[in-house]
Amino acid sequence: MIRLVSCIALAICFPAAASDTPPPTMASVLEAATAADWRKPDPDNTLYLELASGRVVIELAPDFAPRHVANLKALARAKYFDSLAIVRVQENYVVQWADPNAGDIDKRKSTGELPRTLPAEFAREIKAAPGFTALPDGDVYAPEVGFMLGFPAARDPKIGKTWLAHCYGMVGAGRDNAADSGGGTELYVVIGHAPRHLDRNVTLVGRVLAGMQRLTTLPRGSGAMGFHEQPEDNVAIRAIRLAADVPVAERSALEVLRTDTATFAQLIQARRTRSEAWFIEPTGKIELCNVPLPVRGAP
Amino acid sequence: MIRLVSCIALAICFPAAASDTPPPTMASVLEAATAADWRKPDPDNTLYLELASGRVVIELAPDFAPRHVANLKALARAKYFDSLAIVRVQENYVVQWADPNAGDIDKRKSTGELPRTLPAEFAREIKAAPGFTALPDGDVYAPEVGFMLGFPAARDPKIGKTWLAHCYGMVGAGRDNAADSGGGTELYVVIGHAPRHLDRNVTLVGRVLAGMQRLTTLPRGSGAMGFHEQPEDNVAIRAIRLAADVPVAERSALEVLRTDTATFAQLIQARRTRSEAWFIEPTGKIELCNVPLPVRGAP
Repeated sequence: MIRLVSCIALAICFPAAASDTPPPTMASVLEAATAADWRKPDPDNTLYLELASGRVVIELAPDFAPRHVANLKALARAKYFDSLAIVRVQENYVVQWADPNAGDIDKRKSTGELPRTLPAEFAREIKAAPGFTALPDGDVYAPEVGFMLGFPAARDPKIGKTWLAHCYGMVGAGRDNAADSGGGTELYVVIGHAPRHLDRNVTLVGRVLAGMQRLTTLPRGSGAMGFHEQPEDNVAIRAIRLAADVPVAERSALEVLRTDTATFAQLIQARRTRSEAWFIEPTGKIELCNVPLPVRGAP
Repeated sequence: MIRLVSCIALAICFPAAASDTPPPTMASVLEAATAADWRKPDPDNTLYLELASGRVVIELAPDFAPRHVANLKALARAKYFDSLAIVRVQENYVVQWADPNAGDIDKRKSTGELPRTLPAEFAREIKAAPGFTALPDGDVYAPEVGFMLGFPAARDPKIGKTWLAHCYGMVGAGRDNAADSGGGTELYVVIGHAPRHLDRNVTLVGRVLAGMQRLTTLPRGSGAMGFHEQPEDNVAIRAIRLAADVPVAERSALEVLRTDTATFAQLIQARRTRSEAWFIEPTGKIELCNVPLPVRGAP
């Protein structure tokens, strides 16, 4: 099978099918992927949120939010989150967990010597950032968008900054009005249409790799902004653990498709121009948060 | 309070606050809205999807899909949907209902003299279309996007066409591979990040005005594409009724903010540049499916 390579805007090179081969689909791209196209999430940067309904797996993003991620890991190791609760479920927006007594300085759970707040990590320098797989179709909110280390990201070469993007499943550190008032004691997950206006307003710390439906199917909060009005409506958190601290046999064996490979570039192309028989208008474009980031059970 | 008007790209005119008034927020815009800014959905173009959990209210879009809407209304009046079921709930994508026996010509429910399939209504001529409130910040998928008659829409003046956009809560008519294989007997609702690659691939027929959480919280289907594998996992539809056929006392009394008014233009502006105290980066842009389309209980 001969494959040519076509290069388009923003220097993405997509392998193009020769005319005698059917155009790629996501299914065919994933079928042709090799073991090297997949990576195992680092257990030292993976959190397990344990609910009565089961586990939600979160991959952390230390390259974007090193101090928040370090604090989160330390909080998890100190069992800070155990017995806290999901206190907010807002339709088409976020699920959020916190100490239900966070507002009461006498009743709130201690973080020991760990800080409750940290300097914001809204964006980082592009200069030292690893490879960026850029998308060619533009974006409403940022000059450039694409993927870095498996996360949806945006960047602005003019100011030399890059930042994570609020796509579905992204996890962030809630804060009060001050930029530096977050620190990881309250976290939220995007469960609706990407609220990209939150980009560079909150420190994003990772994304959900598995178990989204344990969050998205939760009853919505009846209060303002989806907060639960009655304590009994809060959803208990059994524990948040660092995967590395969980016995190997109890870990979730997952693999994530790398985003810096020719295979991922093919996947983007297959999703930009849909060649499945069902599609009539193949579109020819794709928006950042519509690019799938495949996760599978480890073979 | 003096208000100036500033006009920007695509001929949207936004009232601008004078320098001595605080910049508008969504809350202040809605507070200042008058009765004339709100409209009551036409009961002749509103469907009630009745589930065990309660009602989902759908506003139909006869200006975009006249034949599909007419057929849907006739199917509802013939009680075609009663006792059918939600057969698909796919995470971050759609909820879909249909006749679980649709594939079996001997067992499927009769539509009487009503057609099962219709010519596709993917787009309509701009020429005779009513007013379009355009957004100024571009779009990945279409040359122009904005709002028409309360619905998120896109258009391409070069080809003279306009079409509804697959934002969260939009309702479409499922189809098989042929463009003309849909007709309203199967409907889906977008429950995740806007799958805009479906634009001009499916006939959109309306949007959900109330009750989204009755769909979004449903357990996800375990089969491919979120289809339920076991018939007992299907969620029964008690009925779909045209609001006009329901006694007035049993109707949902809702009002929807008009999208062709100065108030709506102010709302867009208030959401493009966020002035609430929490925002640090005000963004200055907005993407089509992030514009709120307010619905309230009728006073």
